[in-house]
Amino acid sequence: MSKSDDYEAELARLQLALIGMQKKAIAEGWQILAVFEGRDAAGKDGAISRITEHLDRRQTIAVALPKPSDRERSEWYFQRYVEWLPACGEAVLFNRSWYNRAGVEKVMGFSTPQQQEQFLRDVPAFEKMLVENGMRYAKFWLDITRETQAERLKARSADPLKAFKISPLDAVAQEKWDDYTDARDDMLTRTSTTEAPWICVRADHKKAARLNIIRWLLHASGDKTLLKGVAQPDPEVIFPFDVAALTDGRLAR
Amino acid sequence: MSKSDDYEAELARLQLALIGMQKKAIAEGWQILAVFEGRDAAGKDGAISRITEHLDRRQTIAVALPKPSDRERSEWYFQRYVEWLPACGEAVLFNRSWYNRAGVEKVMGFSTPQQQEQFLRDVPAFEKMLVENGMRYAKFWLDITRETQAERLKARSADPLKAFKISPLDAVAQEKWDDYTDARDDMLTRTSTTEAPWICVRADHKKAARLNIIRWLLHASGDKTLLKGVAQPDPEVIFPFDVAALTDGRLAR
Amino acid sequence: MSKSDDYEAELARLQLALIGMQKKAIAEGWQILAVFEGRDAAGKDGAISRITEHLDRRQTIAVALPKPSDRERSEWYFQRYVEWLPACGEAVLFNRSWYNRAGVEKVMGFSTPQQQEQFLRDVPAFEKMLVENGMRYAKFWLDITRETQAERLKARSADPLKAFKISPLDAVAQEKWDDYTDARDDMLTRTSTTEAPWICVRADHKKAARLNIIRWLLHASGDKTLLKGVAQPDPEVIFPFDVAALTDGRLAR
Amino acid sequence: MSKSDDYEAELARLQLALIGMQKKAIAEGWQILAVFEGRDAAGKDGAISRITEHLDRRQTIAVALPKPSDRERSEWYFQRYVEWLPACGEAVLFNRSWYNRAGVEKVMGFSTPQQQEQFLRDVPAFEKMLVENGMRYAKFWLDITRETQAERLKARSADPLKAFKISPLDAVAQEKWDDYTDARDDMLTRTSTTEAPWICVRADHKKAARLNIIRWLLHASGDKTLLKGVAQPDPEVIFPFDVAALTDGRLAR
Repeated sequence: MSKSDDYEAELARLQLALIGMQKKAIAEGWQILAVFEGRDAAGKDGAISRITEHLDRRQTIAVALPKPSDRERSEWYFQRYVEWLPACGEAVLFNRSWYNRAGVEKVMGFSTPQQQEQFLRDVPAFEKMLVENGMRYAKFWLDITRETQAERLKARSADPLKAFKISPLDAVAQEKWDDYTDARDDMLTRTSTTEAPWICVRADHKKAARLNIIRWLLHASGDKTLLKGVAQPDPEVIFPFDVAALTDGRLAR
Repeated sequence: MSKSDDYEAELARLQLALIGMQKKAIAEGWQILAVFEGRDAAGKDGAISRITEHLDRRQTIAVALPKPSDRERSEWYFQRYVEWLPACGEAVLFNRSWYNRAGVEKVMGFSTPQQQEQFLRDVPAFEKMLVENGMRYAKFWLDITRETQAERLKARSADPLKAFKISPLDAVAQEKWDDYTDARDDMLTRTSTTEAPWICVRADHKKAARLNIIRWLLHASGDKTLLKGVAQPDPEVIFPFDVAALTDGRLAR
Repeated sequence: MSKSDDYEAELARLQLALIGMQKKAIAEGWQILAVFEGRDAAGKDGAISRITEHLDRRQTIAVALPKPSDRERSEWYFQRYVEWLPACGEAVLFNRSWYNRAGVEKVMGFSTPQQQEQFLRDVPAFEKMLVENGMRYAKFWLDITRETQAERLKARSADPLKAFKISPLDAVAQEKWDDYTDARDDMLTRTSTTEAPWICVRADHKKAARLNIIRWLLHASGDKTLLKGVAQPDPEVIFPFDVAALTDGRLAR
Repeated sequence: MSKSDDYEAELARLQLALIGMQKKAIAEGWQILAVFEGRDAAGKDGAISRITEHLDRRQTIAVALPKPSDRERSEWYFQRYVEWLPACGEAVLFNRSWYNRAGVEKVMGFSTPQQQEQFLRDVPAFEKMLVENGMRYAKFWLDITRETQAERLKARSADPLKAFKISPLDAVAQEKWDDYTDARDDMLTRTSTTEAPWICVRADHKKAARLNIIRWLLHASGDKTLLKGVAQPDPEVIFPFDVAALTDGRLAR
C-alpha cells in the first residue's frame, strides 16, 4: 500500500471520529469552536476543508470574515466575532480570527500599538470566559519554514486557479518574515493559557499536518471515548507550544 | 485521454471562468445569488463545493440554514433568509432555501396549506424585486430519477462517512416520490418567471450535471465576456424549464 | 373641564385601548408594524412616544435607524429594515423608514432617479407581501402647512433642548417646500394600495393629530372589539388619502 | 418657586449637559454604555426616559430585551447582549441587563447555581475589557425600601395604564424581599470593580433619584468640561457603593 493510500485511510478514520464528535455535540449540546492561524500558505484552508468535509452542513460553519464594515470598525473589537460563536450542537471554525490584531495588523501597522497591546491583554480573559462557560475550544498555529512558504507562494502565483489565494501581502510575508516571527512569538507567548493553549503544528508536510490537527481537535473535545483507535499525534509533527523551539522559525525536534 | 481527465480539464476551465466572474463582481459591485434545490441525493452539495472551491473565501458564502429558532418561526417567513443576501462583491449560494415551504414542508405537512399557497404567491414578487434591484440570480432544480435516488440513498447508508447526509426523511423521499413530484411540478410551474426562471438540471450523471450547472451560472451572470471559450450547456443534460418533460419524474429528451 | 383635561382624558382612554391591543397581539401572535412619515417637524416623535408610553417595553420597539453603514449601502435596499420587522407579539414603529428613498433622497439627490423609480415600483409588492402574511400594518403621513412648519422650526432653533432635532436639512425643508410636495404626492399616489393605504393625518394641531393617529392605529389592527368606546377619527383632522386635497400642501376639507 | 419648578429647571439643565455629552460622543467617537438595575418598581424606566428624552433618536438606544429565543439560550450567555453594544457616537442604555443572572434568575431558580457562580466570575473580566477598550460605562443600582416598593406595586395594580408593568413576579418581589437582598449584596460586592463600580442610587424619591443618576452619568463620561455648572450628586440620595449600608435593605446615611 502506498503512502498516499495510508493517508487516505487514516484521514477517513479520523473523519469518522469527527462524525462521532459531532453526534455527541448535538446530543449533549456541546459548543465546538476552533481557530486556525498561521503563516500565509501554511495550509489553513486545506485543514479546515478536511475537517468539515463530512460534518453536518447545517450545524458546521467555516467563518472567514471579510474586512470589517465602517460600523464594525467603530464597535468593540471582538463584537463582530462574537456574533459567530457556536450555539449548542454547532461547530464553528475560524479561518483567521481575532488574532489578526496581533499578526498582520501589527506587522503592517493596520492598528495602533496601543490597540495591539490591549488585544494581547484581553484575549486570555476573553477565551477563558468562553472555555469556563463550556465551550470546547482549540486554537491552532500552523507553522512552516521560510523555504516552504517561498515555494508555496511561488506555486500559487503560477496557478491561475489560485488567483484568490494571492494577495499583495504575499510578497510581504517573505520580506517581513522576521517581523512576522516576532509578532508570532509575542502572540503565542502571551496568549497561550491553561484554558486555551496554542496547539502548534508543523505544517511543512500538508498531509501529516492535517492528520495531526484532526487528532488534536479530537483531544481538545475532552471526551476520551472519541479517541479510541485514534493514534497519538505524531511528536515529530505536532507538539504543545514551546516558544524556544519556535524562535527562529524552524520547529525543533 | 480518459473521460475522467476530460472532466477534470473542463471543470478547471469553468472554475477559471468563475474566478473571472468573481473578479468582475468585486470590481463592479455585483451581488451574486444562487439557490440550489432538488430531490434528496440529487447532488446539491457536490455542485456547490465545485463552484466555491477556488472562489474568494471571504466573499463567498454557502448557506445551509439549520432549523429556524422559535423566534424565527414567528417572524415573516423570508426574514431569516434576507439576512444572508449578498452585499456588493459577494456570492451567496443557498443549499436549500425558502423553497422548503413548497417542497418538504408541503409533502410532510410541516406548514399549513394556506402558508404554502401564500408562499407560492409571494415568491415571484420577492425574487422579481431582488433581480430588478440588480441582483444576479440563478436558481437550480437538480432532477434525478427514482432509481438514481434509490441507489444513492442506499450507497449513503452503507458509507459511515455519509452519516450526516442520512436523515429520517430519506425513506420518505422514495415512499412519497409522487407527492414530491406533484410538489415540484406545482412549485416549478408557479415560480418560474421571466426575471427568475428555474434552471432544471438532469443530475443522474453527477459530473455532467456539475459542469452544466457552472455553465448556466456563468450565463446567468449576464456578462457575455465571461462565456468566451465556455461550451454551451449540453441540451441532453440541462434544459430550460419544461413542465411537460418533468411530469412523470423522468426527464424527456 | 378645560380643553387640556379633555385631551388627557381621551389620550388615557386610547392608551388603554392600545394596551388591550397589545395584550391581544401577545395572546394571538399578531405582528404589529407602523410606519411614520411626514414633513420635518410634523410631530412624528411626539405621536410615537404617546403610543409607546404604556406599552410593554420588551415587546415594543421604536426604530429610528442611523445612516446605513458602507456594507448596508451595498445590500438590497430593504435588507436593513427587514431585520427589524416584528415577530409575533411584537409592535414595531418606524420613525421614518424605507420611504426615505422617495422623500429626502429624491429632493436632495442622495440616490439616483433610477433607484427612486425602482423603489416606488417595489414598495407596493413588498408591503403586500407583509400584509398578506398576516402583518397588521399601518402607515401614517403627517401633514402640516408651510406656516406651521416654519413656526415649529423657528421654535426648535430657539430651544437648546431641541438641539438634536435640528439639522442642516431644516432650512431645506422650507426652501424646497414645493419639491417635497411633489415628492410626497408622487409617493402617496403610487404607494397607497388596498393592502397598505396611506393614512394621512392633518397634524397642525398636535394633540388632535395624536388622538387621531391612535384611533387609526386601533382601526388598522382589524379587531373591532378594540374599538368599543373609541370615537371615530375626526374627519376634520384625519382623512383617507386624497391626493387632490393634498396637492398644494394645504389640506382641503 | 415651587419644589416642582426647581426639579423641572434642574432637569432641563442636566438634559442640556447630556446633549453636550452626546455631541462630544459623536464628534470624538465615544461609545457610551449604561446599565440600569434595581428592585422592581425602583424607577428604572422613568430614569431612562428622562435621559433619552432629548438625545439623538438615531444614535441612542434604550434596550429592554425580551426573553431569549431557544437559540439564544444555547449560546454564550453574553452573546445576545454584545450584539447591542454601542458603536462610536452611540449611547446604549440597558433596562435590565446581563445582571438578570445574578438577580431574578438566582431568586427564582431560572438558572443553575453553577451558571450564577460562573456569571459572577465572568462579569468583572467582561466589563473590564469593555472599559479598557474605551467604552464609557456606568452601571446603576436603584435601591428602594420595602415600604416604597409595596406602595408602588399597589399603586400600579390600581392603574390600568400600568398593566404592562405588572407581572406575576411582583408578588414575589415583596415575598422574597430578603432573598433579593442577599442576591443584591452578593452581586454588588462581587461585581463592583475599579473599572466598573456600581453607582447605588437611593430611589425612594423619584425626582431626586433621576437628577442624581444624570449627574453620575455625566461624571462617568470622564469629561470634566461637561460638569461645569452641574451640582455634585447629593450625598443624601446617592453614594458610592457601600455594602454595609445596604445590608438590611435600608440605605444608611
